[in-house]
Amino acid sequence: MNVLELARALIRRPSVTPDDAGCLEFIGERLAALGFTLERLDAGGVANLWARRGDDGPLFVFAGHVDVVPPGPEDRWRFPPFSATVADGRLYGRGAADMKGSLAAMVCAVESFLAEHPSPRGSIGFLLTSDEEGPAVHGTRHVVEILQARGLRFDYALVGEPTSEHALGDTIKNGRRGSLTGRLTVHGKQGHVAYPHLVDNPVHRLSPALAELVATEWDRGNEHFPPTSLQVTDLHAGVGATNVVPGECRMTFNFRFSSEQTPEGLQERVDAMLRRHGVPFSLAWELGGRPFLTPQGELITALSDSIEAACGIRPRLSTSGGTSDGRFIAAICPQIVEFGPVNATIHQIDESVALAELEPLAAAYRGVLERLLPPAGDDDARV
Amino acid sequence: MNVLELARALIRRPSVTPDDAGCLEFIGERLAALGFTLERLDAGGVANLWARRGDDGPLFVFAGHVDVVPPGPEDRWRFPPFSATVADGRLYGRGAADMKGSLAAMVCAVESFLAEHPSPRGSIGFLLTSDEEGPAVHGTRHVVEILQARGLRFDYALVGEPTSEHALGDTIKNGRRGSLTGRLTVHGKQGHVAYPHLVDNPVHRLSPALAELVATEWDRGNEHFPPTSLQVTDLHAGVGATNVVPGECRMTFNFRFSSEQTPEGLQERVDAMLRRHGVPFSLAWELGGRPFLTPQGELITALSDSIEAACGIRPRLSTSGGTSDGRFIAAICPQIVEFGPVNATIHQIDESVALAELEPLAAAYRGVLERLLPPAGDDDARV
Repeated sequence: MNVLELARALIRRPSVTPDDAGCLEFIGERLAALGFTLERLDAGGVANLWARRGDDGPLFVFAGHVDVVPPGPEDRWRFPPFSATVADGRLYGRGAADMKGSLAAMVCAVESFLAEHPSPRGSIGFLLTSDEEGPAVHGTRHVVEILQARGLRFDYALVGEPTSEHALGDTIKNGRRGSLTGRLTVHGKQGHVAYPHLVDNPVHRLSPALAELVATEWDRGNEHFPPTSLQVTDLHAGVGATNVVPGECRMTFNFRFSSEQTPEGLQERVDAMLRRHGVPFSLAWELGGRPFLTPQGELITALSDSIEAACGIRPRLSTSGGTSDGRFIAAICPQIVEFGPVNATIHQIDESVALAELEPLAAAYRGVLERLLPPAGDDDARV
Repeated sequence: MNVLELARALIRRPSVTPDDAGCLEFIGERLAALGFTLERLDAGGVANLWARRGDDGPLFVFAGHVDVVPPGPEDRWRFPPFSATVADGRLYGRGAADMKGSLAAMVCAVESFLAEHPSPRGSIGFLLTSDEEGPAVHGTRHVVEILQARGLRFDYALVGEPTSEHALGDTIKNGRRGSLTGRLTVHGKQGHVAYPHLVDNPVHRLSPALAELVATEWDRGNEHFPPTSLQVTDLHAGVGATNVVPGECRMTFNFRFSSEQTPEGLQERVDAMLRRHGVPFSLAWELGGRPFLTPQGELITALSDSIEAACGIRPRLSTSGGTSDGRFIAAICPQIVEFGPVNATIHQIDESVALAELEPLAAAYRGVLERLLPPAGDDDARV
């Protein structure tokens, strides 16, 4: 298949968010040659590609991003970050593991699969964006909104995030926690510290509620999710004068929440807590994403079996870590999993992927297609 | 006596802290003419004057500051802030009430007193500085340290701060609360919000201790002092990213404390509270001043009687409000009171003093000298 050469060609395009640096056109040409219909859904300076081959169900979608995080100080890299240098059995470069190696493996997997089975059951799609590492507003979310408006639904989605921890195939993500941010302003009355009866200190107003907030056990998680966690990320009051009581206190906090919670439920609990303590406040919420979970089913089984066949390892399921574009795809797809190479070097100087991961990764991706979109005639007589 | 003309001459010298703008030389000339020995104790860009007339005890000292706070936007003043304009029965100008009116009244009181009693009992001193409104490090504190090193002690000190609230003579200060500032750093471990097991949030560490700190009743005050009060003046953590847990949290808080407390005792209680909650912290303390109190005695009696005679009102005693240079003088003087004009306009645009306050203020100051340093021959045959 030669995943390596395709990965190198992608890394050489310095697609720092939101610039796709020609990656989507390059991939699009490969897909068009396979019979995919291409649709560019660019928006707000972000390049997006929706590609589909076939009209029937089930619809299996590979999802991912061509953008990479900035390389940081290039002189600290062992090799130039966009040179895609091979050394010591590894491919070095920004995006090698997150996630141009996965994209190359996906394209090669489809090429190989279709070469052998030109008329498989169902359809194959690609949903690719150049803004997953940035604000992620005009990227996958935007494309999903358009497809959803058309009434389209995916049956399966496989996101190429680097989920492996120590060895290729040891971990796949079958969900992610939700993310909810609160921006709190506590209102007080500024004044001189020497006249406590004339001031209303917003830090003092907040403090008992804050103590309860951080001590609260929101849930204990469940079979699939770790417990919901709250972290205060910013807290600011005062102007630096030791004789002035501040007039307001601002606090930002973020929930990473399990499927035991809803954003609305968390908001109500925080609201009630602040009111119970008599805090005079304003509070704005930003929902980063709802939790999503793919229960055991055809997709997890197909991917796990395929990984075991290609890599000799049975993956464990995980929902830990940050969010991914899977949160947006969940709106139109009941089964989403994420799988890609070892993530030990991502976002770092000297990001790299082992050469030995590339072909097995493509083989594992291809194996999923073989299991979920079996060629007509093998076990299906429709065509 | 003509307090007004002297007050105007002082106001016309724009002595914004720490510039004395010639005020001390001007006052010094008036005092030298009365037989005072002058000593300039300037330090760190601050002008200080120590003047004394007489060698015997008791030593009665007038204390005050010639510096003023900045005028702010001059075009918002009804009259230029250093023009010392008289209008509608008031003298307008920066420092009119805080405290050039008092200084003028003190000088005139002494001139008048000595004109009638050229050889009074005891000694009269003046301790004047050009930095009371600023850092107050090289001002009265510095002079007191020098005098203390010489073994000098005052018997009585009268500070000319504007203590009257509604009418001249309604309030005198017979003490001030102490001021103690704590600068706390809570140490944590920075990291990504999505990995709560890898971070140690300093805001979370602090929160239960903070709740206890602000809920604590440190004391209920006493006959002379309002309760000790703590105010958090600054609280900062975080860099503005909603996905990053901050690595440390900084908090500044200030105690205004009664004579029921010592700085050491407060420090121990805060320290113990933080330790009991397991907070990983560093804490630096700055002592602004210890509380001081002048109990009922000759000075309060003399001043109260004198005010009643000059103003027709019996003053109430108070220890409220901010600190004053009395905190430094307390180190070498057992009896300190503060008395001056109505403070309603101090530090404001259009600061002013009623013309009707000036002569009674001087009369009240003079009456204190008559009561505490009775002229030889009246009730004392030593001279």
